[in-house]
Amino acid sequence: MTAATTQKLDRKQVEQLVREVLRQKLSGGPASVAKGSAQAGGGPPHPLVVNVSARHMHVTAAHLEQLFGQGAKLTKLKDLYQDGEFASEQLVTLVGPRQRIIPNVRILGPARDYSQVELSYTDGIYLGVDLPLRISGNHENTPGVTVLGPKGSVTLEKGVIRAARHVHMSTEDMAYYGVKDGDYLKLRIDGPCGITFDRVKVRYHPRVILEVHIDTDEGNAVDIESATHLELVK
Amino acid sequence: MTAATTQKLDRKQVEQLVREVLRQKLSGGPASVAKGSAQAGGGPPHPLVVNVSARHMHVTAAHLEQLFGQGAKLTKLKDLYQDGEFASEQLVTLVGPRQRIIPNVRILGPARDYSQVELSYTDGIYLGVDLPLRISGNHENTPGVTVLGPKGSVTLEKGVIRAARHVHMSTEDMAYYGVKDGDYLKLRIDGPCGITFDRVKVRYHPRVILEVHIDTDEGNAVDIESATHLELVK
Repeated sequence: MTAATTQKLDRKQVEQLVREVLRQKLSGGPASVAKGSAQAGGGPPHPLVVNVSARHMHVTAAHLEQLFGQGAKLTKLKDLYQDGEFASEQLVTLVGPRQRIIPNVRILGPARDYSQVELSYTDGIYLGVDLPLRISGNHENTPGVTVLGPKGSVTLEKGVIRAARHVHMSTEDMAYYGVKDGDYLKLRIDGPCGITFDRVKVRYHPRVILEVHIDTDEGNAVDIESATHLELVK
Repeated sequence: MTAATTQKLDRKQVEQLVREVLRQKLSGGPASVAKGSAQAGGGPPHPLVVNVSARHMHVTAAHLEQLFGQGAKLTKLKDLYQDGEFASEQLVTLVGPRQRIIPNVRILGPARDYSQVELSYTDGIYLGVDLPLRISGNHENTPGVTVLGPKGSVTLEKGVIRAARHVHMSTEDMAYYGVKDGDYLKLRIDGPCGITFDRVKVRYHPRVILEVHIDTDEGNAVDIESATHLELVK
């Protein structure tokens, strides 16, 4: 069966039913909760923002052209919290090892040096992929998946992960929390389904500001929309 | 459209695709992690067992007959951890307000004085049902759902919940932890995805032994299979 045939079959089948089955959380934008605010003086340099990352994909420029045709570029659906990052209008379909399908997986832009698929464990169990817990870009011993786009398919040999909880920080954020790149903090979320998440890894980048990323399993476990208090603690 | 027609249509559609889409976690038995062991002397009266409850239903004898025919009884698939509780062989299909379907929802026995459907928030978001967080049996202001069985359907007016985290305890367990019925403990789970769950409610019953119940969102968030240490703390 060629990739094109697979895609056609899948689309026909999924559009009636499976599209209804798997929610594209991202379409409404990721859940976001911000508590506190930036303050002059002794306060934090940036408010504590916790965003729930729905399943998504990052692509290389080459893979983007394979999936969406020669010369294809990512087009912006909406800006994400970090400057320059965006949810694109481009959607792909994932096909797991037993032909199970997850449609409507959004590509986040801009294009990267590597292609990567970030799923929740709920997604991984459904697809039949044993997801390793990884920080973005660490693809050693990670599984692959077949990705379908409107103009072609890509079979990734690796790069399918559950993204490990992490917090993006600027130099000022690290100074405020007394941590350095690669350290771990705990994220305490109070509320009816309150949770303290261990092992939230600090990730420094010169162009980011304070933002925690958790996945949909974690966001639903804590029911982040009902959170009454957020705090990063050592 | 009659209930019977709905059922027929749904079955035909779902059996090819949706059955594949929604995993029946219970079929392999709920994930279970026990750390520590019962000890003579100063140790705990029972080992700390944490079980992940997949989506499931409890039924009254009357609803069971509506769904499975006159005189129907629950038949045992496998025993659960608490004495007398079991996963039955009987499966139902849930139909949400927008005709979204979750098939293969297992009934847990024995029959009860009330019918109740326990789902994760992931399930609720998919079905389009805003799940209230409740302890079993508290159905005030809870939504309903349509339930399909092989011989008929039941439209529940209420009783669809996300089960609040809880820990079943005997008198000896409560004495050991220094708590009483209705108190809250925290459940600390160490591991690569370590989490401390707040607000684990103590539920006393004369015929139960120590067992924590969390749902699949919570079990996947903490990746309970990789847990290295479990502890109930005040």
